[in-house]
Parts: sequence; C-alpha cells; structure tokens
Amino acid sequence: MSDYETSAAYRVRQVAKRASYDRETVHAILDAGYVAHVAFMDQAGPVSLPLFYVRDGESVLFHGARKSRFMRALGGGGPLCFTVTHMDGLVLARSAFHHSMNYRSVMVHGVAETVADAEKPFALDLFTARARLGRPQETRPANAQELKATAVLRLPLVEVAAKVRTGGPLDDPEDMDLPVWAGVVPMQLTFGEPVRDIAVVPAD
Amino acid sequence: MSDYETSAAYRVRQVAKRASYDRETVHAILDAGYVAHVAFMDQAGPVSLPLFYVRDGESVLFHGARKSRFMRALGGGGPLCFTVTHMDGLVLARSAFHHSMNYRSVMVHGVAETVADAEKPFALDLFTARARLGRPQETRPANAQELKATAVLRLPLVEVAAKVRTGGPLDDPEDMDLPVWAGVVPMQLTFGEPVRDIAVVPAD
Repeated sequence: MSDYETSAAYRVRQVAKRASYDRETVHAILDAGYVAHVAFMDQAGPVSLPLFYVRDGESVLFHGARKSRFMRALGGGGPLCFTVTHMDGLVLARSAFHHSMNYRSVMVHGVAETVADAEKPFALDLFTARARLGRPQETRPANAQELKATAVLRLPLVEVAAKVRTGGPLDDPEDMDLPVWAGVVPMQLTFGEPVRDIAVVPAD
Repeated sequence: MSDYETSAAYRVRQVAKRASYDRETVHAILDAGYVAHVAFMDQAGPVSLPLFYVRDGESVLFHGARKSRFMRALGGGGPLCFTVTHMDGLVLARSAFHHSMNYRSVMVHGVAETVADAEKPFALDLFTARARLGRPQETRPANAQELKATAVLRLPLVEVAAKVRTGGPLDDPEDMDLPVWAGVVPMQLTFGEPVRDIAVVPAD
C-alpha cells in the first residue's frame, strides 16, 4: 500500500524520526483502538472530547446525539483533529531527562462529513460489530426514532500522521554506568472476563 | 473536600446525570492516568495532542521541548482543554442503540502558566517519580542544558468536570427478552513485567 501524502502542515516535526505515513501502520494503530480524542473549537474554546470510533476503509467514523454540542460544531464542517493513542510502556532511563514512554499514535486533521440517512444503518452496524468484538450481530437494529436521534460523522484519512516510539531508554553515554534501574515497564489495554447482564424487566 | 465550582460553560450537558464535580473523584481519575489529550488551536487548526502529565495538588503539570509548536502555542496563554479518559468496559446491549462504554474521564478547561525556572527542578522530579511508579528517585537529575530545553506548564484545576459511566446496559423494557448476549466486557490498563535495559556504552 502507498504512503499517505500528508501535507507539510500536518507532518510530524517534533522527533520526526518517529513519524510514519505508512498506510498499514496507520490502519493497524486505528484498528487497535476504541476511543479517539477529537479536538475542535466550541463557543467555550478548544475541546478535546473522547469518542468511540471505528475505521471504515479510508475513513474513520464517530457518532453522537444529533443535538449534542460537538455534532453541532462538527456536522457543519468545522476543522477537527482526531487522535488515537496507545500507551505501550513507561521508559525509565538512568537520567531524569531521558525518561519517556513507548506509544503508538495516529493524528488525523480534516473536516468530517455527515453520513447520509440512507447510509446510517450500515455505519451503525460497524459500531455495533466493533463494540461486540466480532460477536455475531444479533442485536435489535436501531428503529426510526433512534436513527433520527443519532448523527454519524465520517472523517477521510487524508491528512494523516502516525508517531511510534519503541525500545529502551536512550541515555547519554556518560550515564550508562550509573547505578539506576533502567528499562521499560510494559503497558497494555487488556480485556477481563465478560460479565453477563442479569437485569430483567420489573414485574407489574 | 468541596466540589469544584465549575462555570456553566464547562459543565457536562450531554447525559448530565453522569457528571461529577467532586474533588476526590476528579483527583482519583487524574491520579490513575499517565497521558492526557490536550486540545488547543495551532496555525494549522485544532490539535489534540497526547501528553504525559502528573497532578500536583490543585493543578496538573505537563512538559515538552521548549521550542516545540505546542509549547509556543500554550506557553503564551492560549486556551486549552485537558482531557484524561480511562476505558473501563464495552457495554453490550440487546439493542444496537444502547451499546455504550464504561469510562471515567476528566476535562479541564483553562489557560496554563509556564513554570518558573527556579521551580522547574521540583516539577520535573514529579514527572520522574510518576514515570518510575514510586521507585526511589536515584536518577541523574536534569543538568542546566536539559532544564533550559524543557518547558513545564501548569494548568490549575478550576474549570473541571468529571464524567463517569458504570454498570450494565440500559436496554428498553421491550427488548429485555431478546436472545442477545448482553453485559459488560471489562477493559483495563495493565502493567507487564519490567524489562531491564541491557544497553552498554560501545567500546572505543
């Protein structure tokens, strides 16, 4: 697959050697995540909002209540920044300065399109499948009222940058013999045993 | 402890019953996290940037290269939104519409102050202690050049809101008998076994 042809304004500048524009790398990072932090301007200033998302080919989808503030801010085509970050480890160095983190992140800049009503059921199926971790989709689909209450936005993967840090600490040569524990404490998002809902309809 | 007296503009409006302004709740959510997503305006539009942070009493601290774009954008007092989100579980409902997530999040709006040079060493010690997960601080402290290259920003906890979802799916009564697996798949950030760095200084 070809690299993203990200504009200069949206390329990584800080520690650019950790940047990647490789499509497979970007897809893998997005596909490993559930929540993005979406930045946009509101009347009250900048906002960084956590949102469940799903990748659909060369775009990401996120949704919310049609009347919510963020849908009003973004449904009209306001600029946004969509960021997904996986924390992979705390990097402990021999010097305070070289402490770091291992991570995989993707940042997408752009303007989202509102998914048309006719396509909304298919888009919502993608969210359900993602939330159900591939369990067969046997759920009751959204009815007309629920569909109407929900807005889905689609952000194309065009202005895209990944940034990844891996490996151990990068201490200065003169610090290598200091008697300090140095290394990586791995971090990972893990799933526990599913807990079945035992709620029942209250008797009359 | 008293609640935060958050202004109306920064209070939770969407599903406000999940909001909390309780100081202990907010502190606990912040103290459980490592990375915040900070939103601010850049020349290129809104940005949502993942940043390592630490809480220091009634403020949060984050740092970066003094010459980085975000430090230039925020060091001068630009408005920002600082968000920490913990994913606690995928909530699988009987209907597609009622799928949800369990989470704990804190959003702080405001303007950051640049930590003065004289206080920077103390602030940086907090980052190191946080990264080392309480291991004794035996690292080589930052030297004058490293201190100069690093900027630390302090954001006061004033305009603060927490939002928390817990518990199982909230299906409609008429869906409760559908033959659909419903419940919660717990999610958690876990630490693996520390991996010691075995790098050595190359021989001449």
